[in-house]
Amino acid sequence: MPRPAAPASPPRPSARGRVLRLRDGAWSRRDDRLAVEEPLEVRVAAAGAPPEPVTVTMRTPGADFALAVGLLVTEGLIAPDDVARVAYCTGPGVPQAFNAVTVHTRRPLRRPVSPRAHAMTAACGLCGRVTLDELAVRCAAVDDDATFDAAWLTALPDALRDTQPGFARTGTLHGAGLFTPGAPPLVAEDIGRHNAVDKVIGAAAMDGRLPLRGTVLTVSGRVSFEIVQKAAMAGIPVICAVSGPSTLAVTASHELGITLAAFVRGGDMNVYSHDERIRQGDD
Amino acid sequence: MPRPAAPASPPRPSARGRVLRLRDGAWSRRDDRLAVEEPLEVRVAAAGAPPEPVTVTMRTPGADFALAVGLLVTEGLIAPDDVARVAYCTGPGVPQAFNAVTVHTRRPLRRPVSPRAHAMTAACGLCGRVTLDELAVRCAAVDDDATFDAAWLTALPDALRDTQPGFARTGTLHGAGLFTPGAPPLVAEDIGRHNAVDKVIGAAAMDGRLPLRGTVLTVSGRVSFEIVQKAAMAGIPVICAVSGPSTLAVTASHELGITLAAFVRGGDMNVYSHDERIRQGDD
Repeated sequence: MPRPAAPASPPRPSARGRVLRLRDGAWSRRDDRLAVEEPLEVRVAAAGAPPEPVTVTMRTPGADFALAVGLLVTEGLIAPDDVARVAYCTGPGVPQAFNAVTVHTRRPLRRPVSPRAHAMTAACGLCGRVTLDELAVRCAAVDDDATFDAAWLTALPDALRDTQPGFARTGTLHGAGLFTPGAPPLVAEDIGRHNAVDKVIGAAAMDGRLPLRGTVLTVSGRVSFEIVQKAAMAGIPVICAVSGPSTLAVTASHELGITLAAFVRGGDMNVYSHDERIRQGDD
Repeated sequence: MPRPAAPASPPRPSARGRVLRLRDGAWSRRDDRLAVEEPLEVRVAAAGAPPEPVTVTMRTPGADFALAVGLLVTEGLIAPDDVARVAYCTGPGVPQAFNAVTVHTRRPLRRPVSPRAHAMTAACGLCGRVTLDELAVRCAAVDDDATFDAAWLTALPDALRDTQPGFARTGTLHGAGLFTPGAPPLVAEDIGRHNAVDKVIGAAAMDGRLPLRGTVLTVSGRVSFEIVQKAAMAGIPVICAVSGPSTLAVTASHELGITLAAFVRGGDMNVYSHDERIRQGDD
């Protein structure tokens, strides 16, 4: 799929602000860089139909097309090769051209939007088990016999941070990166953890790289169920996180064949599932 | 409003798991505590009507009634004194009794669920401006002339962490606390930042304490628009955060009369809005 052209005036991921600063007991007024947060409406024009809004997410501008495609792919609404083109909604009279993206697809949606809202009404109460079972219907367990050196894995969080320009400027943005040994990483940032993951998976999808065999998804924060779901939908065998996982994230990783390494800090880590992919050598 | 009785078998916020641990170059297998993540369905039975599902949020069990009430109040769907009672959905044949909560209200909902999804369809693209204007319709700017010592404010993040049992056990849970000088804080934890805030605001709402004049909301993470929205809906004059804010969080704080202090760490802080509430004494 050809990657869409960049817009004429791309939105910026950070902006200037004024701040009253207290440092070591002394007050001063100065300029500061802030992470931008704006809503993004994601629409789908499926197989020639008019665009229909699917969702609105609060996001940091940048990689918006990747974010839209990544969100639709990881939610199971489209397959990567369904995408025909992606465009900002920039018609005349549109005041906010860069906060709405339409993904034009060659085929109808793979499932209705929000089947979960429907399922909810039918059964009184959901549970993690139901959530997992729903996901299992949408994606197979990751079957990937790649292995990785423990020493290489423990270095990934620092490598991710070193490639995050926005974090250095604002101190606020989450990062997500796709790492394979010996290749440059694909990295994205966002005020939302899940958006950063959608951005890297979406960019890979637009490059025809899914499923992401032999790839490690590194995230700067904690790991909830949603992050594991996104990795599974993209066929990623290993998640490497700076902070900790939830119970449902661990259960999902077990069942979906994903290696989950968390609290990866200062050369240490905890491995919660499928540790057979980690080579425990002394390096 | 009377606080509902605790359920017979309350769900737990953390659970045991097994982990392969790498510490200082040595591997071992051991037990670990994990933050629990389960879906919670929030339903409203408005003014005697049958319960209707409003949303599902992935949350850490605990303070579920407060979470449900806080979410409905901060979304502007109900007013605090609309609440008649709150109950788990525990009928016979219900497999997941503690993952669904019904809030019974004395009055109809204050606005339809998801007016935003509707607004979206009408206008091509949202923007932060529209998001702010929508919020301004729902809540007035906070008008509170309380002031706070800078030294007291900079101590709040440590005070919050000291009252977070789940963080100590799991290293993963976000915390939110309502602090007033000279009184014990009200604190909640959750795998989701926004859920922790809903839990403390909901608990305060159930105790008839809204609007929360003279109160500081302390959060363990970053500040997005959503957190400022929740504070404004609860009438909270000051937000104090360990990490940084987004542009939209800063703009919203300015317009909604909220003092936003962020990067509050080790005695330092940045104040982004309404610093007139902070007494800059050397203390």
